[in-house]
Amino acid sequence: MKAYKGYLIDLDGTMYRGKEEISEAVTFVNQLVEKKIPYLFVTNNSARTPEQVSDKLVSMGIPSTPDHVFTTSMATANYVSEKKPGATVFTIGEEGIKQALKEKGMKPGDETADVVVVGIDRAISYEKLSTACLAVRNGATFISTNGDVAIPTERGLLPGNGSLTSVVTVSTGVKPTFIGKPESIIVNQALEVLGTAKEETVMVGDNYHTDILAGIRAGLDTIIVHTGVTSKEQLTDYDEQPTHSIGGLDEWRFE
Amino acid sequence: MKAYKGYLIDLDGTMYRGKEEISEAVTFVNQLVEKKIPYLFVTNNSARTPEQVSDKLVSMGIPSTPDHVFTTSMATANYVSEKKPGATVFTIGEEGIKQALKEKGMKPGDETADVVVVGIDRAISYEKLSTACLAVRNGATFISTNGDVAIPTERGLLPGNGSLTSVVTVSTGVKPTFIGKPESIIVNQALEVLGTAKEETVMVGDNYHTDILAGIRAGLDTIIVHTGVTSKEQLTDYDEQPTHSIGGLDEWRFE
Repeated sequence: MKAYKGYLIDLDGTMYRGKEEISEAVTFVNQLVEKKIPYLFVTNNSARTPEQVSDKLVSMGIPSTPDHVFTTSMATANYVSEKKPGATVFTIGEEGIKQALKEKGMKPGDETADVVVVGIDRAISYEKLSTACLAVRNGATFISTNGDVAIPTERGLLPGNGSLTSVVTVSTGVKPTFIGKPESIIVNQALEVLGTAKEETVMVGDNYHTDILAGIRAGLDTIIVHTGVTSKEQLTDYDEQPTHSIGGLDEWRFE
Repeated sequence: MKAYKGYLIDLDGTMYRGKEEISEAVTFVNQLVEKKIPYLFVTNNSARTPEQVSDKLVSMGIPSTPDHVFTTSMATANYVSEKKPGATVFTIGEEGIKQALKEKGMKPGDETADVVVVGIDRAISYEKLSTACLAVRNGATFISTNGDVAIPTERGLLPGNGSLTSVVTVSTGVKPTFIGKPESIIVNQALEVLGTAKEETVMVGDNYHTDILAGIRAGLDTIIVHTGVTSKEQLTDYDEQPTHSIGGLDEWRFE
């Protein structure tokens, strides 16, 4: 197998399953540390800050600092501040996206905002959805942190941000720019943070439709690991295959 | 013009515009009363009870009793009680739909419910949407009172029930049965309540995509009145035309 010089790594289904640890993941990341290979965790979870994500990883024995975490909230805030510097932003979302936009100096807005950002929000309300719709109808740029339609939880599959975003899309007829996986926007930004070239970096994840497609679209090699969403059987249905397919991260040989 | 023996009449844009009265509407309905022609107001508003709708009409001088009102909540409750007698129902919605389902003897359910009904709910929450998604994934029959994507208000166009419903549709991949206009389900039920034959009944409304299409699909003659959503110019774009087109209800001659 190719000796990649950088790893972009998915979290849920790859490093852990919800609250459940995946022991091979700990060994896998420890090997990256030993071999001094740079890695970055890339997540579509817009609710948590990099500090919160890193804390969870460390509590499971996975070596991480906040600098090892790249969330779709950080990618969204980068995107907004580059495309619309100084803009006002009406945000639906939780702590992760709010902190990221604030750190980039974006100012909060209302139905006259220049930009509407929608991220997962467990305190969603009709008033928030109304303000987002009015702003988009007033011409605001419409951005969504990610299009995931469902979130796996102990209760079952709950509504993901893609389904909340659809309220604004369906009501206004305006489609958002999605930032997270499977879009290449988040992957290209993550590559810049990691500092390795596209050709020598690999994307690791369990979900064909987010992780693997994101890698493929951004032109990276990919490793699918069958410890989460996509089974080995399902994988055979898809035209574009990942570069590597493994049952668990313990099957991976670094060179 | 044909002497229709029954009138199905839309409300917003036809009988009034939000809080604004339409004086020709008062004269129009008074003529129906004088001529003893049966009429029924047919509305996609699932939030209000027939009593509340009738009170508003009376306050604007339009002759009405609760028996003159047929809401999509009543049509939904009829549909559910016919298709799934004795079923448990998890409901997203306001007073109108809750009262209608209760009057039909439907029992409240949770994520194990037999049926999920979604109507407009200005107190929408992530918890309600989650329970609806879990129930639909568990196999519940998925019904939506109406597919209107936006609601006209003093603030502008706010999210309608079609956009709230899309959260469950997008998240679960299951499409609902819509009951309200432009579906023929609500029109066929309204005809039964009114008691006149399809061939001698006319549907009156201002919105081509809801009122007029509902009438056409159910096989009724239709009157479009240009005091609301659809302009005379827009109407020329559509293949299937209403039977009659008038600028205001004062232009209508009863025979």
